[in-house]
Amino acid sequence: MTEATRKHQPALDAAIQALHGRTFFAAFPENPSPEIYGADADANGRAAFEARRHQRYTELRQGEPAGWVGQEESPYEQEALGIEYPYYEPATLVRNAEAAFGPWRKLKPAQRAALLAESLEGIRQRFFEIAYATMHTTGQSFMMSFQASGPHAADRALEAIAAGYEEQTRFPEETRWEKPMGKYNLTLHKTWRAVPKGVGLVIGCSTFPTWNSVPGMYASLVTGNPVLIKPHPKAVLPIAIVVAEVQKVLADYGLDPRICQLAVDAADHLIGKDLAENPAVKLIDYTGGAQFGEYLEGLKGKTVFTEKTGVNSVILDSCDDLDKVAQNLAFSVSLYSGQMCTAPQNFFIPAGGMRVGEQQVPYEEVVQKLAAAVTGLAQNPKAGPHVLGAIQNRDTHERVQKLALDGGRSVLAHGSVEHPTFKNARTCSPCIHEISADRIEQYSQELFGPIMLVIRTRDTQESIRLAAQLAREYGAISCGAYTTNSAVKEQIMDEMSLAGTPVSFNLTGNIYVNQAAGFSDFHVTGGNPAGNASFTNPEFVIKRFTWVGFREPAE
Amino acid sequence: MTEATRKHQPALDAAIQALHGRTFFAAFPENPSPEIYGADADANGRAAFEARRHQRYTELRQGEPAGWVGQEESPYEQEALGIEYPYYEPATLVRNAEAAFGPWRKLKPAQRAALLAESLEGIRQRFFEIAYATMHTTGQSFMMSFQASGPHAADRALEAIAAGYEEQTRFPEETRWEKPMGKYNLTLHKTWRAVPKGVGLVIGCSTFPTWNSVPGMYASLVTGNPVLIKPHPKAVLPIAIVVAEVQKVLADYGLDPRICQLAVDAADHLIGKDLAENPAVKLIDYTGGAQFGEYLEGLKGKTVFTEKTGVNSVILDSCDDLDKVAQNLAFSVSLYSGQMCTAPQNFFIPAGGMRVGEQQVPYEEVVQKLAAAVTGLAQNPKAGPHVLGAIQNRDTHERVQKLALDGGRSVLAHGSVEHPTFKNARTCSPCIHEISADRIEQYSQELFGPIMLVIRTRDTQESIRLAAQLAREYGAISCGAYTTNSAVKEQIMDEMSLAGTPVSFNLTGNIYVNQAAGFSDFHVTGGNPAGNASFTNPEFVIKRFTWVGFREPAE
Repeated sequence: MTEATRKHQPALDAAIQALHGRTFFAAFPENPSPEIYGADADANGRAAFEARRHQRYTELRQGEPAGWVGQEESPYEQEALGIEYPYYEPATLVRNAEAAFGPWRKLKPAQRAALLAESLEGIRQRFFEIAYATMHTTGQSFMMSFQASGPHAADRALEAIAAGYEEQTRFPEETRWEKPMGKYNLTLHKTWRAVPKGVGLVIGCSTFPTWNSVPGMYASLVTGNPVLIKPHPKAVLPIAIVVAEVQKVLADYGLDPRICQLAVDAADHLIGKDLAENPAVKLIDYTGGAQFGEYLEGLKGKTVFTEKTGVNSVILDSCDDLDKVAQNLAFSVSLYSGQMCTAPQNFFIPAGGMRVGEQQVPYEEVVQKLAAAVTGLAQNPKAGPHVLGAIQNRDTHERVQKLALDGGRSVLAHGSVEHPTFKNARTCSPCIHEISADRIEQYSQELFGPIMLVIRTRDTQESIRLAAQLAREYGAISCGAYTTNSAVKEQIMDEMSLAGTPVSFNLTGNIYVNQAAGFSDFHVTGGNPAGNASFTNPEFVIKRFTWVGFREPAE
Repeated sequence: MTEATRKHQPALDAAIQALHGRTFFAAFPENPSPEIYGADADANGRAAFEARRHQRYTELRQGEPAGWVGQEESPYEQEALGIEYPYYEPATLVRNAEAAFGPWRKLKPAQRAALLAESLEGIRQRFFEIAYATMHTTGQSFMMSFQASGPHAADRALEAIAAGYEEQTRFPEETRWEKPMGKYNLTLHKTWRAVPKGVGLVIGCSTFPTWNSVPGMYASLVTGNPVLIKPHPKAVLPIAIVVAEVQKVLADYGLDPRICQLAVDAADHLIGKDLAENPAVKLIDYTGGAQFGEYLEGLKGKTVFTEKTGVNSVILDSCDDLDKVAQNLAFSVSLYSGQMCTAPQNFFIPAGGMRVGEQQVPYEEVVQKLAAAVTGLAQNPKAGPHVLGAIQNRDTHERVQKLALDGGRSVLAHGSVEHPTFKNARTCSPCIHEISADRIEQYSQELFGPIMLVIRTRDTQESIRLAAQLAREYGAISCGAYTTNSAVKEQIMDEMSLAGTPVSFNLTGNIYVNQAAGFSDFHVTGGNPAGNASFTNPEFVIKRFTWVGFREPAE
């Protein structure tokens, strides 16, 4: 273990430095090129994924299961994957985790950090396999599947490892405390321990099965807590591979692999509540809908980290080049068919239109430019299907098809999109609906999927007021704003900051409001109802352990 | 303000360094000597206090009050102080705080930290006045009143200022993010703000009116939140002086003094709930009973920091010199008549007695040594009254007088203690009651005041098990342990660490389990039901603000 610690220390130090510099940093290249990952990496990854279909998943090291379960299906094929995972009773999982707790918490933070960093190397070897697993569970395009579930997730995991390691070493393990008392000194030997809170539970979502789960998973692990990873039943494989790689490293170092266990739902019921309510479970990380998230946040005696739903706004005030703005925003709403927690939904446009350079462009022209850009992207056969990907959930597809908002008008109907490879893919192009600013009840809910709402406001002041109010009251994870006016910009920053919402200003070209860069952008602020946790600020790791001090007279 | 920032930066840097070194550090000398504080400081402080009796307290700068209220009485005289404080409706206080919020949050963390550090200098000038105010509201001895409410409180305040300043400056205000994209670089200008959460409320207790309130008060202020300080109605004056000094500095720098307001209860009802439930109040710091603390912790949409009640244990296993141990423990239970949250209550002694050097001392002899030491201290006219002080609350006095535990036996009855100066002081010496280990319901509650319980256990293993169980289930803020066996010591550290309880081993001489040193000992770990907040770990400050980021294409 000493060797592992030595080996990974430079990478950890670099990651900690990156966390504080917040300039560009990536430990795992996002480009799936053969030069970086090897000539056969793609073919081997695809073959590995294909070989798993209609098989039992036997890589886990967590004992004899009570049964085998599986209910994944590919949004590209609309057919079952047929992979079965070992099922364990919730009480068994918790008992195993408690049994594995002692030796894990007694390691030094640097040792845990090193083993966890080592697991990321194993995961890196399987980025392509994970990418195909992600594609055929979430409906993401291959490129997003690779990047989000592979290198970006691994970077977010490393971020949590680095932050957890740093926080656990910010106070000394021991010190000599010597108080001058006049004629003599009072001297105590003091020691401190960062004490983990107990069993951690990580509840995943169906759209980002590794990206959204690894931060909490690695944050709990690095701070000495055993974890149970309960994936969404429709998106198990990507995170199962991650868990298997962590277990492999644990076993390699003579530790109990059940420090990190996969907890799949039973065939006939979900086990999230059983696990969450178990008294030994002290930490919960959750990504998903608001209702279950609020139930978890209300549990007594638990430290709960959530990413729930929000309604993201774009404030359109003024710009230099409206075509570039429209193209950028069309991409943002289309990317993975709006199934990102950072996707924009509500576009606030003043009734008087937008200032574009020296011109005032009328409201309707702005709306039509946006619609044209969305249509243009969806109908571009080389780009559209790859940007849009497939729709993970049948309900999301139906929501778009049946969307009927009370009031306003349909600006653009959703359309069909043919995928070049998967003829049976569940796809559709985004729809656009216009709604009046005074119908807040119509746009204050998250409409997950490729749905874009245009909200006609009196002026930019009303746009800002509504965007901030929505974020404060209903939550928001991202906000886009276009303005060339510095006073308006400062006002947006001030009001959105009080609503705990990050703002991207004037993005055009190849950078989008949906994207959040590891080691630089905090993902979710924790400052509004969209979630209480942030990847990865210090709070995300320090709430997972307790500082306890000991003292005695010095020799 | 630039000058203030420059002036206080070295002190802040020293405080941050001390927080991380955790060796002895004190910015404010605890010795009330004329050499340090001036020849007339004591006389002037006493005169200032005396002049306030039966007067209106007019130092606050928070506008026209709705009335004047006061209900303090001296535990030394059992007579009303007759001081009246301005009363404001809760809604008025919150409205004032919201109005003062903007300019305060827009200052830089370094500016807020400097102004707050400056307020501590003003408070330092009034340490003696605060000491007499504390004595005649809490019943603490003069020495404890001076130290706890003066220098120790000021050090804890500085600790919060330093920690808050450090945490707000751990990430850059701005950076240039440059991502290599192959043929070009994608470049963003990014900025971050530490955004305060909103109005803070600090609810104080009757026994440590400044020490327990200033950490939360200064932590909220330094992170940009306006605060309302609601003292216990029986212990207002010490913290009123502190608030007045903060307001003075704010006014001196042209800021609204209502950034920090005193919120006294109405004459006929307490206003804590009204304030806590106000939607604008986002942060609550609370010291006091468990029931109200749990109500506060359960409020939705608030960040709540609590120090509630706990049952503190002493584990007696083995030692070198039992007389020294008994003297040390007798002092600990007697200090301020057991009215400290860190005072030990439950003393676990094995039925087989204690190993003392090479001898086995029988159980009953250990018990009698403890009783003799308690009696010896209480009956020593030069030490007893000054260590014991007076009893703040009539109910506490009655609890001791009427104590009737079911089972066990009375080892030592409480006695009367005559104070040399104040003939009418509310005093009594500690009582000792023995109870069997299997009557956990008898000793799992906090018996606030000079009450010591001796619990006869099968062996040290049972002592450890019970001490850890009590801490986990009912909370504990301190633990004392005496053992010469290193395996037993490690076991105690391990089990008490999981129960979130700091342990002092083998203390004898002039250092006591009750004491917690600023900049070194974390006070309350936050890891058990005794409270969720710790003075001052990073969590205590970072939960008061949100990191929000902004980005835009770089020029």
